[in-house]
Amino acid sequence: MITAQHGPQPADFADVRATNLAVVLRHVRRHAPCSRADIAAATGLNKATVSSLVADLIERRLVRESGLTEHRIGRPATMLVLDGTAYAGLGVTVATDQVTAVALDLAGEQLLSWRRAVTPGGAQNGVATTSPGRLTSAVTTVVGRAVNRLTAAGRQVLKLTVGVPGLVDADGTVRLASDLGWHDVDLRGELVRALRKPGYDVVVENDANLAVLAEFRFGAHAATANLIHVTNAAGVGAGIILDGRLVRGGLGYSGEIGHITVEPDGPACPCGRRGCLEAVAGAAAIVRHVRPQPDDAAVPDLAAEVEEVVRRARRADRTTLDVLNRAGRHVGRALASTVNLLNPEVVALGGHYVALAPWLLPAAEEELAAGSVAPGAGGCRLVASALGADAAAIGGAARLLDDLDGGLLPRPAGG
Amino acid sequence: MITAQHGPQPADFADVRATNLAVVLRHVRRHAPCSRADIAAATGLNKATVSSLVADLIERRLVRESGLTEHRIGRPATMLVLDGTAYAGLGVTVATDQVTAVALDLAGEQLLSWRRAVTPGGAQNGVATTSPGRLTSAVTTVVGRAVNRLTAAGRQVLKLTVGVPGLVDADGTVRLASDLGWHDVDLRGELVRALRKPGYDVVVENDANLAVLAEFRFGAHAATANLIHVTNAAGVGAGIILDGRLVRGGLGYSGEIGHITVEPDGPACPCGRRGCLEAVAGAAAIVRHVRPQPDDAAVPDLAAEVEEVVRRARRADRTTLDVLNRAGRHVGRALASTVNLLNPEVVALGGHYVALAPWLLPAAEEELAAGSVAPGAGGCRLVASALGADAAAIGGAARLLDDLDGGLLPRPAGG
Repeated sequence: MITAQHGPQPADFADVRATNLAVVLRHVRRHAPCSRADIAAATGLNKATVSSLVADLIERRLVRESGLTEHRIGRPATMLVLDGTAYAGLGVTVATDQVTAVALDLAGEQLLSWRRAVTPGGAQNGVATTSPGRLTSAVTTVVGRAVNRLTAAGRQVLKLTVGVPGLVDADGTVRLASDLGWHDVDLRGELVRALRKPGYDVVVENDANLAVLAEFRFGAHAATANLIHVTNAAGVGAGIILDGRLVRGGLGYSGEIGHITVEPDGPACPCGRRGCLEAVAGAAAIVRHVRPQPDDAAVPDLAAEVEEVVRRARRADRTTLDVLNRAGRHVGRALASTVNLLNPEVVALGGHYVALAPWLLPAAEEELAAGSVAPGAGGCRLVASALGADAAAIGGAARLLDDLDGGLLPRPAGG
Repeated sequence: MITAQHGPQPADFADVRATNLAVVLRHVRRHAPCSRADIAAATGLNKATVSSLVADLIERRLVRESGLTEHRIGRPATMLVLDGTAYAGLGVTVATDQVTAVALDLAGEQLLSWRRAVTPGGAQNGVATTSPGRLTSAVTTVVGRAVNRLTAAGRQVLKLTVGVPGLVDADGTVRLASDLGWHDVDLRGELVRALRKPGYDVVVENDANLAVLAEFRFGAHAATANLIHVTNAAGVGAGIILDGRLVRGGLGYSGEIGHITVEPDGPACPCGRRGCLEAVAGAAAIVRHVRPQPDDAAVPDLAAEVEEVVRRARRADRTTLDVLNRAGRHVGRALASTVNLLNPEVVALGGHYVALAPWLLPAAEEELAAGSVAPGAGGCRLVASALGADAAAIGGAARLLDDLDGGLLPRPAGG
């Protein structure tokens, strides 16, 4: 891949070919059915080069001839389409009480979408904790079943991406996932062992990063170059895309909006500190304020509890509306700092915030506008994610598509 | 230029040559004196290509033969060096009470460094304001003198970059510079007219962006991929580099750390809001707390006032130490939000904060560590900028070098 990091690198022809394979594949993904001539015209590559590249992609089972021809002056042109049958990408996300799995084909179509409840093992500051062993086991089970389903349908799984709410190192170690109660868990290593060294890539990633990648690819504001997704599946976290690229930071710990202090000496947070946005205005905190729990136990079945909050808000229950208004304001203030720093075009609220958005957004928008120095919050639109609560698992499955776009293609059979 | 934004673009050979010109020039800039054979060995380009590219660069007066040869097996190799004599880049920054100008040659060496006081025209919330006309006039005068000086030394100025503390649009309009009291000023247009359509590029940029570019190129932590420079020349602003690239945001309004609300209902800020970091802990605010001014007038000669604060701090004056400690804590809290969101490797404090750093940094580091969820603030080092208070003007002059690195080379004479 030719990159422009830290100054230009010498260009050579192997890089050029790899880039051009990805360009042709991308064109087919976007414009199928299309002919070789269409590809040449659109990309500026000459026809002989295109033919050679198409042959390569057919051999790798990424593209196939559709059997349709388009009649035009001269020879009928054979139309090419994605070969959707051969491969799949799998994304799995973990929260304290559930594991979600999504598989996509090369066109980005969903092949499966599962959710499996996991019983939390304990609680800490009112948040469920689940041992790495228990969750790994749940993930392994779900992955095994998904791979079997896909294999039975004739597909090869090329990549598994697991999304975790927390700080994830580049090698897949979960440095800190306070919402799960995890410290320094080699999740990637454990999964590779439990899955018996599978034939596909295994990657562990921060869940908010995966959610924003899904937002960028599939959301209502897809391809917005400066885009933030704030997820609230387990804790509260942000995935940040600037200038079309995912932000990771020096150690991969970017996007920790949930641990911005919004209330000095506020409620205790699972991370060990006090007054974090997550502890004040995360979904679990909202639920606790609306329906105080009898003890410090975890909120069981957070999704069901959030639905109850929604029902009460619809009935205009005063307490519920006040709680949502205050939470929205806290979110808006944290977003104001974010907008002042990054000037995003769109901020999408995801996870459990989607269901609560009708009541959170007005309050958040007011605080965001008041707290941003640029007029109109610098043009930032604050929306509820159109992808619903599963954005991170979708983004995980779509990592395979990111690889393809980047020129990392599966080898030809026997090659 | 081959870029990888939003997916791969078709690669063609004109791009490849432009890239390779830049690669060769960059190698000479870093490793001169060097031979054509050295360049070929280091870059992987073949010798005939290198010779052709070197001839091109010599014609553009970017590289020259040094007259030295290195004796080795076979023919003596002629050593190449940068042609430092032909060109210059000029950077000018504006604050309420001064204009700073720096010129650099292609090797990044300083050719001139001037500072010119400007009398503020008025005041607003204790901050000087200066009309666009008055400052444009001062900039024009300084630029005219600098260009004359450089031209007399046989150099052609290729680019002028003007740094402004505020929100600058992509076309060079200053949307808002509250510290100067400016709204919607077409500074680039005014300068081009005042300079009588000069033969060089004229660019207007946010001053903190220029400062971080200088930090990235010349600072003590040069080439750190995730690097933030917080300037305090006029207001407080941040330049943000992530993954080796400058962050601008959707409209170019990124980095407004000075307008993060750190004290609800706090002191009035020139931006029209209250409790901004700048109004609470900027240099002007620090000076006012140490030596309360009799009225709401601007702090005259901020640099001299900051020197007085430093003298008092060295004498361990209690009031002064308390003021600096509190200011440092506010800076640290704003940095904690920044670090949670972006996980930078280095944050450098610049402008007037450099002189105050010995007293600001300890307090800021404590709050930063306490406010960051990642252990050790995610590895972030908080330092005083080694570039002193002129980082932004240096960065402005260095924009020419960024152009060269990006393959935008001056045309050959007559070409």
